[in-house]
Amino acid sequence: MAVRIGKQTVKLESKPRIISTYTVVGPKEGQGPLKDEFHNVLEDDMCNCESFEKAESKMHYIAVQGCISNAELKESDVNYIFSGDLLNQLFSSSFMARDISIPYIGMYGACSNMTETLSVAGMCVESGCGKYVIASTSSHFSAAERQFRMPLEMGSQRAPTAQWTVTGAGAMMVSSVQEKDKPYITYITTGKVKDYGIKDPNEMGAAMAPAAVDTIRQHFEDTKLQPDYYDLIVTGDLGKVGKSITEKLLLEFNIDIRNNYIDCGDEIYDDENQGTNSGGSGCGCSASVMGSYIYKRLLNGEFKRVLLISTGALLNSISPLQGESIPGIAHAVAVEMGES
Amino acid sequence: MAVRIGKQTVKLESKPRIISTYTVVGPKEGQGPLKDEFHNVLEDDMCNCESFEKAESKMHYIAVQGCISNAELKESDVNYIFSGDLLNQLFSSSFMARDISIPYIGMYGACSNMTETLSVAGMCVESGCGKYVIASTSSHFSAAERQFRMPLEMGSQRAPTAQWTVTGAGAMMVSSVQEKDKPYITYITTGKVKDYGIKDPNEMGAAMAPAAVDTIRQHFEDTKLQPDYYDLIVTGDLGKVGKSITEKLLLEFNIDIRNNYIDCGDEIYDDENQGTNSGGSGCGCSASVMGSYIYKRLLNGEFKRVLLISTGALLNSISPLQGESIPGIAHAVAVEMGES
Repeated sequence: MAVRIGKQTVKLESKPRIISTYTVVGPKEGQGPLKDEFHNVLEDDMCNCESFEKAESKMHYIAVQGCISNAELKESDVNYIFSGDLLNQLFSSSFMARDISIPYIGMYGACSNMTETLSVAGMCVESGCGKYVIASTSSHFSAAERQFRMPLEMGSQRAPTAQWTVTGAGAMMVSSVQEKDKPYITYITTGKVKDYGIKDPNEMGAAMAPAAVDTIRQHFEDTKLQPDYYDLIVTGDLGKVGKSITEKLLLEFNIDIRNNYIDCGDEIYDDENQGTNSGGSGCGCSASVMGSYIYKRLLNGEFKRVLLISTGALLNSISPLQGESIPGIAHAVAVEMGES
Repeated sequence: MAVRIGKQTVKLESKPRIISTYTVVGPKEGQGPLKDEFHNVLEDDMCNCESFEKAESKMHYIAVQGCISNAELKESDVNYIFSGDLLNQLFSSSFMARDISIPYIGMYGACSNMTETLSVAGMCVESGCGKYVIASTSSHFSAAERQFRMPLEMGSQRAPTAQWTVTGAGAMMVSSVQEKDKPYITYITTGKVKDYGIKDPNEMGAAMAPAAVDTIRQHFEDTKLQPDYYDLIVTGDLGKVGKSITEKLLLEFNIDIRNNYIDCGDEIYDDENQGTNSGGSGCGCSASVMGSYIYKRLLNGEFKRVLLISTGALLNSISPLQGESIPGIAHAVAVEMGES
């Protein structure tokens, strides 16, 4: 049974383990600084499909199958799959789930999907409902651009604060089986929607930063831990601009994370040479970085404790046209490698 | 701790109780056969807002606040809200959640949202993570029509098999507190995505029926119960066409539910006099019928055991244009009033 700690945090007592992961990214991500970390780098981001959306769904499918295979399981062993993506009505997740035979729960938290699905997968295992449960998500640059911003064919100039949606998918297998050489979920801090009035869809980092700050602050308040408890505090896709805002805002609460803080969107590209402006974004960003680079270093003991905070901007293509600002959300999941 | 039963079903042992509900519907639903059942019938489906989407979000907010109030709780007592709707990127749920101060998890299962959110709320309570947890959903006829089909201004003629999206929202409070005069969740059967190749968005009932059949069949196979165990078996929004297909397909598996089976979409309108063709649809359909008519009869003892199966069609506005058929999904939740 989980224990509620403070206002927004729970401690999972059953140690749901992340027993496998799989990540797949597009060619651009495969040329970035983390190129040797991913399980699979696509040569062609169309993935032999007819549309960007179908390509994203296929990539999502590859990640899920890879995750099942890495756990040395079959589809029929898996009790639930919790999945989400950025596309309208979860095109990528729904059509991925059509091609597998696993009970499916669709989720939407924009780019916070990785920790949103991972949180619920953790709860599901903790409740005894699931023995093997997948959390997965995906995003695709070209599908996201034409849905949220402009058709690529227009060749619009990108704002300096704009981020580049990661073409990538990640899946993680959460299990009650105590494989002691695998990391487990300790704390879950579920975020509230925060809106500080940012209206420019090219300022997603700034729109999401207050949500990240709120969830990180609440996590430390609830757990009474200090930031140096973690070897690594990782936000999902705030990019350079959002990362810098997050650091500064947290200092106002006397929380200094600068020594052990990275942002997946800041790590995945070489912004200067890859033209990605403020860095990476999209659900696939934290999914592919957590499922590869960070997960590998949890396995080899380089990191013992990691706090992952994926961040989402809950706009759609018509909400800014109706005069609405961009609400943000962030969910935190703590993952640890322990002795027991 | 929940117990896994068969392939897709879990039995919750902690008896998460549905301690309150609240339903709000539009004027058309307020003139239908269930008009005296709902908690709130709007005089104007614009809800004093500037757009259909904002009206839906406000209606969703009214349902959530009503549910909290009916449980005699405050916002700060509620640990999580699991919400979904039909709009792109969950416009209704996200903006509803912006205006409340409760940790928020967005979910998408199309019109299966009510049992999808209720399933996860049940797991969340079972795990010990939540003491008070809300499951909620909404839909709005005018917002759905312009997003998925045609702008209302076009005055398109509706197909005989077409359904009418319910303008309505429903919220349920699930709790570990054992209020013994309230019904509790016993079984959850989570569905897989099923696609039988229906490509016409005016045939949603037919697209969703195979998913309903699969989940109902699996529920009875897993639990070894007979259909007459339940006083009522209720699908979400198959409408007349889908209901009839479901009954027939289940007979092929020797499952006869005809004696105790209703469909919320078939109940909510007087199709002949209200021009709703094959009946109601939308997340708000099963949410508003379950949260009012059925919940009241669980409370007064008229029904002891109810199996609710909300059904969703996982298309979006571009998937049919890309040649895709319509995948369906259905999740079942069993609710019982017991002595203990």
